[in-house]
This record gives sequence, structure tokens and C-alpha cells, in this order.
Amino acid sequence: MQIGFVGLGHMGGPMAANLLKAGHAVTAFDLVPAALDAAKAAGATLAASPRAAAEGAEVVITMLPAAQHVKAVYLNDDGVLAGVTKGVPLVDSSTIDPATAKLIGEAAGRQGNPFADAPVSGGVVGAQAGTLTFMVGADEALFETLRPVLSGMGKNMVRCGETGTGQIAKICNNLLLGISMIGVAEAMKLGETLGIDPTKLAGILNTSTGRCWSSDTCNPYPGIIETAPASRGYSGGFGADLMLKDLGLAVDAARGAKQPVFMGALAQQLYQSMSQQGLGGLDFSGIIKLYAKQQNEQ
Amino acid sequence: MQIGFVGLGHMGGPMAANLLKAGHAVTAFDLVPAALDAAKAAGATLAASPRAAAEGAEVVITMLPAAQHVKAVYLNDDGVLAGVTKGVPLVDSSTIDPATAKLIGEAAGRQGNPFADAPVSGGVVGAQAGTLTFMVGADEALFETLRPVLSGMGKNMVRCGETGTGQIAKICNNLLLGISMIGVAEAMKLGETLGIDPTKLAGILNTSTGRCWSSDTCNPYPGIIETAPASRGYSGGFGADLMLKDLGLAVDAARGAKQPVFMGALAQQLYQSMSQQGLGGLDFSGIIKLYAKQQNEQ
Amino acid sequence: MQIGFVGLGHMGGPMAANLLKAGHAVTAFDLVPAALDAAKAAGATLAASPRAAAEGAEVVITMLPAAQHVKAVYLNDDGVLAGVTKGVPLVDSSTIDPATAKLIGEAAGRQGNPFADAPVSGGVVGAQAGTLTFMVGADEALFETLRPVLSGMGKNMVRCGETGTGQIAKICNNLLLGISMIGVAEAMKLGETLGIDPTKLAGILNTSTGRCWSSDTCNPYPGIIETAPASRGYSGGFGADLMLKDLGLAVDAARGAKQPVFMGALAQQLYQSMSQQGLGGLDFSGIIKLYAKQQNEQ
Amino acid sequence: MQIGFVGLGHMGGPMAANLLKAGHAVTAFDLVPAALDAAKAAGATLAASPRAAAEGAEVVITMLPAAQHVKAVYLNDDGVLAGVTKGVPLVDSSTIDPATAKLIGEAAGRQGNPFADAPVSGGVVGAQAGTLTFMVGADEALFETLRPVLSGMGKNMVRCGETGTGQIAKICNNLLLGISMIGVAEAMKLGETLGIDPTKLAGILNTSTGRCWSSDTCNPYPGIIETAPASRGYSGGFGADLMLKDLGLAVDAARGAKQPVFMGALAQQLYQSMSQQGLGGLDFSGIIKLYAKQQNEQ
Repeated sequence: MQIGFVGLGHMGGPMAANLLKAGHAVTAFDLVPAALDAAKAAGATLAASPRAAAEGAEVVITMLPAAQHVKAVYLNDDGVLAGVTKGVPLVDSSTIDPATAKLIGEAAGRQGNPFADAPVSGGVVGAQAGTLTFMVGADEALFETLRPVLSGMGKNMVRCGETGTGQIAKICNNLLLGISMIGVAEAMKLGETLGIDPTKLAGILNTSTGRCWSSDTCNPYPGIIETAPASRGYSGGFGADLMLKDLGLAVDAARGAKQPVFMGALAQQLYQSMSQQGLGGLDFSGIIKLYAKQQNEQ
Repeated sequence: MQIGFVGLGHMGGPMAANLLKAGHAVTAFDLVPAALDAAKAAGATLAASPRAAAEGAEVVITMLPAAQHVKAVYLNDDGVLAGVTKGVPLVDSSTIDPATAKLIGEAAGRQGNPFADAPVSGGVVGAQAGTLTFMVGADEALFETLRPVLSGMGKNMVRCGETGTGQIAKICNNLLLGISMIGVAEAMKLGETLGIDPTKLAGILNTSTGRCWSSDTCNPYPGIIETAPASRGYSGGFGADLMLKDLGLAVDAARGAKQPVFMGALAQQLYQSMSQQGLGGLDFSGIIKLYAKQQNEQ
Repeated sequence: MQIGFVGLGHMGGPMAANLLKAGHAVTAFDLVPAALDAAKAAGATLAASPRAAAEGAEVVITMLPAAQHVKAVYLNDDGVLAGVTKGVPLVDSSTIDPATAKLIGEAAGRQGNPFADAPVSGGVVGAQAGTLTFMVGADEALFETLRPVLSGMGKNMVRCGETGTGQIAKICNNLLLGISMIGVAEAMKLGETLGIDPTKLAGILNTSTGRCWSSDTCNPYPGIIETAPASRGYSGGFGADLMLKDLGLAVDAARGAKQPVFMGALAQQLYQSMSQQGLGGLDFSGIIKLYAKQQNEQ
Repeated sequence: MQIGFVGLGHMGGPMAANLLKAGHAVTAFDLVPAALDAAKAAGATLAASPRAAAEGAEVVITMLPAAQHVKAVYLNDDGVLAGVTKGVPLVDSSTIDPATAKLIGEAAGRQGNPFADAPVSGGVVGAQAGTLTFMVGADEALFETLRPVLSGMGKNMVRCGETGTGQIAKICNNLLLGISMIGVAEAMKLGETLGIDPTKLAGILNTSTGRCWSSDTCNPYPGIIETAPASRGYSGGFGADLMLKDLGLAVDAARGAKQPVFMGALAQQLYQSMSQQGLGGLDFSGIIKLYAKQQNEQ
């Protein structure tokens, strides 16, 4: 298939490369020359604009940092909507607010292009390995159309409902994840301070009502889970600054809906404090460092 | 075995009955006449005081509402320590602060009685069915001694470390549980408000990094999990007022240790608000009601 | 003086009327016909666009609901910058984020128009009475130029620093105000519940280290301060939904600056809860209603 | 007058000395020999127990660290109640929970001794200078009886209501104080980060709706208020660990009354974090240090 791809960063780069490996033809665009070079080396044809990437494509996929980029890439004069053939499906895998996803979907719909929001989980590792999970907001027919394309980049595709619901699912999951990670950090740190062996405590949590992904798979206490970022200096996971971005999306969406999210807002501030201390590049489980005793002179 | 049992309430009553069923002889004490009547009907011998219940016992088990009761039952003139034979092991299954557990353990130790703190999870249902989990703070030898007795009342016995660590494990688990339940409530309610189908959202959370017991087993949104309290009007689970008590123990223990627990403290206030609204008798997953839109006149 | 005025709502309407009373000529624009009618009745000349209102003006003043309106009014093709004579000073009295204020200031500066952000405090009552306080972000010279114009609408003009600092001052003040009001609500409600006479308690707070505007002038407990909204059913003050907007600006600005604001974020969620309960139109001191005991059936 | 005085620490020592200067005879007790030596040097007669200090006294005054000490000093076999003459008034100036104050009051009442709780504000400086404020829980008659005695140690005496209300007033004030100080810290720090001059910002807060004692008298930003602890390295004010103790009393009293205090609980955790970082000995306005940017290696 002929695929237009816009956004070749840490996520988009390997995703496009996997599409090429799966036998698709990819016409790619990014603002960063080095990203273009890498895509070319992987076998992509380069385009001079999002519009050019979309021209002649049978599917267009975008993977961008934030809502303002998505708006620009789709709606500008040299954007995707200006170039794409009527009827061609469009997929945005960026993580953005649901309202912008719906807005893009409506603009696409008005000119006859079906649009799906399809944010991912799995991170850079999943993007490289082709094992991402896609949370897809699309009608049944579009979802079935996209499945073979997405399967070139990921293992699981979940249809969440109509346009925008992919983003809703993503931010609700990460809202809960951001909170439960801090819950685990507080529980582990309290237990350690009170004198229980952390490994013992984690064993109990993981077989009791406290069990959760943040405890049994990504425990923030070093040495509990061999494969967790905590056991390798909090490197190589899901960065705290990315969690901060996603909590911002969740809290903002809640504001727009007049829905209080007490714990979510506090979680956001705690990751913000972590970021302010220069630790935003660590895996988000590094939040446990905020709870460490320090020795300051007074 | 000859077992002294003090505290025959909603938990202790069925626990004592299960010991009788398992073939033990039980001498029981409680302040409430009706509780004594029930124990007698189940086959227990009645005692006139904790001291009398402990006299001649080969093991003494206590199950009481709070630390002040545990102190009185063990340390008063007519208490367990005054009646028990030297060398006989003592087990307290109440949920109390770790410091009091250690204090009782030391008092018992001074007169030659090994002491274990062994709080439980599983609730009234588990107490009746004999399927409780015991989190035991005891040395290896004592733990092995107690195992056959505890197995008359529960299915899982976990040794957490020395005296006090059973209580530490319990309050750390419930700290995390209290937080993660609110995290699920915020995520489910935000998703619903933004327009995703709650069943769909729960399905995604439960297969993603948000998964946790509070979502996949006790989801607070009605109708998601058939067997969860939320699907039967929040009745018959773990009462919000009990969660409030346990969070109080955790936050107080953290205070004593100068360990901040930001999320735990906020969770405590949220359950306190739930309780203030007259909802403290509901399962703690009813916290989701705090997030419902209301129509007040202004 | 010939003044262009854009935005004739609850605040802007009376502000324009006061300029007319002070002897200025006003050319006014608003999207709402009724607002234009009122301005005409007060003696204003009507304009067909922000651009038209700015043409020929010696000063242009804008008073708009939010940043998106400010951007449109200044930057659109029929906007203020397209119509205004080079060198004419511009004043925006809307409450918006400091970054947008700076952006408008830069755009104005590029075409030779000095720009001041000058948000106000004093509310509708102050706008009508001409007793507003202006927090002005402008250089010394511009501030002195604007002083006589602003004095037609207010009593106090404070220069806060360069462009954007008026907005910073406003949101920092309201961040503190939103927090301290909740602090007073918690203190008054706790005291009442514990059994001290609320009037006695307020008297002590107001002569002790707890004293603050939220206690001694706008106490949220009914009957303490005769003139406070709490003593007239929380009507006629500073609406909770406006406080919610300003806390949103403060928390967003903090996010942009990676500055944690733990209490500010929690305050925002509490006003959001108040708003969700249908109470957002009350004075923000009505937050005390969140702390009232309720009788729900379980 | 013949005064029994128990508790000669940083506060009680100078208070007793001021009573001696005012011409009273003081019989004093403390557990610490150095405190007794100082009292003797100031002219006090020493007693061997609280009971002995109370024997023959016309008024008994106590100033102790916490509720457990108050209980022991009044109720033990060698305590105040065992030694005091019937009818002699008793005054406790410790800061403790209202429930314990009532309990002591009832025990005293049963044996015919009127009891007042009279916690103070003003700190060590006020204790030395004799300028304390007393918040008194006592009936009118007792209050008038005590006034001349208390005036030897302080300048202001406020009757708050019946027994216990002195403590209620104290903890409600300090709940509000602890919150508003953090509010000021967040507002000042946000303003600084966004680029307004801190002195300018403080000037605006202090003449606007944000004004409060924490801003206009004890501003946490260094250099704003010459006489504030912030301008001398946060030394010599009201220690963060004392604020932490008082917030603990407030939050615990709220728990007992099922009254949520969301902001109070978060404030408590923030001071707890400050204390954990080894800064608990600084003035509580040092909480602003939690908001400082740090440079950690990742």
C-alpha cells in the first residue's frame, strides 16, 4: 500500500520503518533533516510538505508531539487535507486532547476523508519492535480498513468507539497510571521507613488488593522487578515529562467537562515537582525520589 | 487445641466458629452479651474476662476494633497477659498501628510469651468462609507454630517479618488500595463524561498499564464487574468507614516516621467527605459518588 | 480624548460609560447588539468592527472574556492592529495568560504601537462606580500616558513592571485568594463542628496570624461580616466560575514555567467540584458549602 | 499570689520568670534539672513533683509539650489534681487537642477545681517579653479571676467560650495560618518565575484581596519584610516542626468530627516533606524552599 507518513521522531521514525519492512511504500515528511535522512535510509520516499506526503497516498498516518502540530499538519495550506485524495482514510497516532481529535475528524469528514484517532501505548521500545497497542477511535468499517495497516506497527488494536474515544481511553488510562504509580511509591516508601523488607512488601501487595501494573511490573523501588526502570537507574521507560504532558491533557479535559479530578491534579503537581528538580527525563517511576529523606543544612 | 479467643464481633465471631468446626476447643470472651450467646451456640465455653479466656489456653487469639482495645485486653489487670501460661503464643488479628503491636509484643516477651501480629484481609465474607489471608509479623519458629491454628480460619498465611510487620504490610496495602480506588473512580468518571462507553474503557484499563484490583475486580462503576459491590448498590464489601480507619493508621504511622504521603492524605480526606455525607457504610468504591454531577439550586 | 473601546459586557459596558461621563469621546464595538444599544444610549459612537473602533482613536481599550477573544480582536484582518494609527497606545484590561499579553504586546510593538496589559480588580460593582484597581504592565512613560485615561474608570493604578506583569500580578493574587478563602472555610467549619461560636472564632482569626481578606472582609460563614456575600446568600460577589477561570490561568502559567503549585491545583479542583454541583454562579466564598454535613440515604 | 507552675521549657521558663517579676511567688516543677536551676535563679521555689507544686498554690499553671504530658501532670498519683486545694483555679497553656482539654476540665471539676485551657500565641519572643496572647476556654467568672494572673505573662486575653474552646481557637487559627503561608509561597514563587519583581508583587498582594499576615508581616520571600524570619535565614520564628504538630492536632480533631479538611491535610504533608528534608527547625515560612528549582543529575 502507498502510505503517507508525517512525523518521524522517536516514535514515528521506527513506526514508518516497520511499515516499510512490512512491504508498504512510504512517502514521509518531517521538519528535521536528520529524521528525513533516516527515513530515506530505511527506504522511504521523501516529501517536501505534509500536503506532498498525502498526495497519492492510500492511507495517511501522522505521529506528532502535541495538538498544535496536529492542527497545523492537517489544516494548513500545505497540510494533509489539502493534498489527500477524497475517500482516503487518515490516522493520527499522536497523543492529544479529544476535542482536537474530533475537530480534525470533522474537518476531514467535510471533505470526504474518514479519520481515526489512534494513540498508542508501548513507548519507543514498542515502536521499534512493532508491538504497540493502538487505541482507536473510529467506526467499525474504518477500523476494519485500518487493521491490516496498523498491524504492520503493532500487535493489539482496540476499537474504543467513535472519533475521539481513542484519545479519551489513552488519557484516562494514563491518569490512573500516574496516580497508581505514586500510590505504590508512597506505600513502598512508608513500608521501608517503618521497617518491613521492601521485597516482602511488594510480594504482599502483588498478591493482595493493592496489586497493579505499577507494583507488579514497574515497581518504583529499585531491585524489586528485575526488568523495571527502577532497577536500571530509572532509564529507558516512560519519561516523567511525558507523564506530565498526559496528566495535563487529562486535567485539562476534565476542566473542560467540569469534572473534578482531585488526585489527578495532585499527581500532576508531584510530577511537575520532579521535573522542576531536573528529573523529568527519568522514567516516571522515579517519582519515588520525591519521598526520600534528605540532609539539608538548615 | 485449647484456644482462648477475645473479640467476637463481625470478624471474630465467625473466626471463632471456624476454629470450633476445625475441632479446637475455644474459651471465648466479649463485652457484648449477644456475641457471647452466639459463641456459646457455636460450641464455645464462655469466659468472664480476657484473663479468664487466656487461662489454660494453648494459644490466645484476639480480634478487636482498635489499638485502645488491644492495649486494654492485653495489659489490664484482668487482661490476657495476667492469665496466660508462660510460653503460650499470642496472636492479635486486629488492624492497629505497628507501634502498638510492637509494644504488646515487648510486654508479652518480657513474661515469656511469643507474640504475633496477624491482621487479615478478606473481610466478613472471608471470615465466614474460612478463606482469610493472614499477614503475620512473627519469627520463623512462631510462624510455623501458628500455621496449623490459623489454617482453621484462613487459606493464606504470609510471614512479613518480625513483630509489627504484619500491621505494616496491612496498612501499606490499604494505603495503596485507597488511592488506586480513587484513581479508578476519577478515570472512569472522566471517561464517561468525555463520552467513551464505560465498559469499553474498563476493558482497556484492565489490559493496559492502568490495570489494578480496583479496576478489574472491584470496579466502582456500576455494571462493569458483575460481582463487585458497585453492581449491587455498594453493599456488602469493605466499608468506606473501615478504609477511613486504615488510611488514618497509615497517615499516622507516616507522621510518626516523618514520611510524607501526599496522595494518602488526600485520599483520607476524600473518604472523610464521603463519610460526612452519610455514605460511610457503603463499600469504599462508592467514593465514585463524590464525582457525580449534582443539581443544586444556587 | 478619542477612545476606541472593544468589549462592552458586564465590565466593559460600565467602564465605557464612565469614560463618556469623564468627557471622552468613545467609539465602541461588541458582537452583542444589546451591548451596542446600551453603549449608544450612554453616548458612544458605534463601530462595525474592532478595526473600525480603532481607526482615528487616540487610545484603544479592550475588555474581553478570554485569550482567544483578545487574539482575534487584535490580530484578525478586521482587528485593532489593522485599524489603529501608528504610535497610539493600546490597553487590554481582560484577565488572560501573561504569555498572550506579551505576544500581543510584541505584535503591537512591531508596528509602532505601545501596549499595556491592565487587568482590574473590583468587579462589576467597581466597574460601575469607577473605583477599579488597574494592575498595569507597561514601561514608565506609557504608564504615565495612560494614567489620566484609566483614572476615568478607576481609583488605583499600580505599575507592576513591563508588559505581561499586570497579568502576572492578577493571577498570583487570585491564586493566593482562592487558596486563602478555602483555608478560612476549613478553619471556620472545623471550629463550628468542634463547638466554638463562629463569631468568636472569626474575631480571633482576624486579630491573629490567621487574619486575611477572606476572613475579615469576605468571611464565608454567614452572618460574620454584614457586607459579605455570605450574609446575602452568596450573591453579588466574585463568582466561583470566575475564580475557577483565574485559577486555571495560574495553574497553566505554572505548568508552562515548570513551577509546582500543589495548593493552587487542589483549590482549582475544589472550585471545580463546587461548579459541578451547580453552584458556580455563587460568590466563591460559597466553597464552604462543600464542607457541610449532608444526609444521604445509603 | 502563690502560683504553682509546671513545665519550664522554652515557653514556660520565661513565663514563670515574668510571673516572678510581676511580684508573684512561684513554686515550680520540671523534669529537666537545668530548667529547675534557671527557675531557681529567677527566684522560684522548687518542687519535687507536679503534686508538690500544686500544694498550697492559689493558682496552678501548666505549659507542656503535648497531650500525654498534660494527662500525666494532672492525673497521675503525684499529679496536680492530687495536690491542689479544692476551689483553686487551674490553667493549662499547652497546645493540645480540645478533647483532652475537656477531659482534664471534667476531672478537675469533679473535685471542685475550675479549669481553663489557655493556649498562647506569640512564641518564645512573646513569652520572654511578656506580650503573649492567651486564647482562654473558661466561663466568665473564671476568666475574670485569671485575668490579673495572665496579665503578668501576656498583653491580650481573649475569652473563646467554655472549656476546650481555647484549644479550638488555637488549632483553627494555625490551620488557616499553615495554609495561607503556603498560599503566599506559591504565589510569590510563581510570580518570580513568571518574571514580576517580588517586592512589587508583595506590594500588590498586600493591598489587594490576597493580603494576609503571611504576606504582609511574615512574607516567606527573603528581603520583602525586613523583620520577617525569611530575611534572616528563616531563623527565630515559629518552627516548621511546631506548625507540623499543630496541623496534626487540627487534622486529627477534624477526623474525630468527620469534617474533611482537604487543604489542611495537604499543608500537613508539605510541612512533613520540609521536615523530612532536614528543615523542620527553620521558621515555617521556609516552606518556600520546597518550591525552588533544583539541579539534580538524572
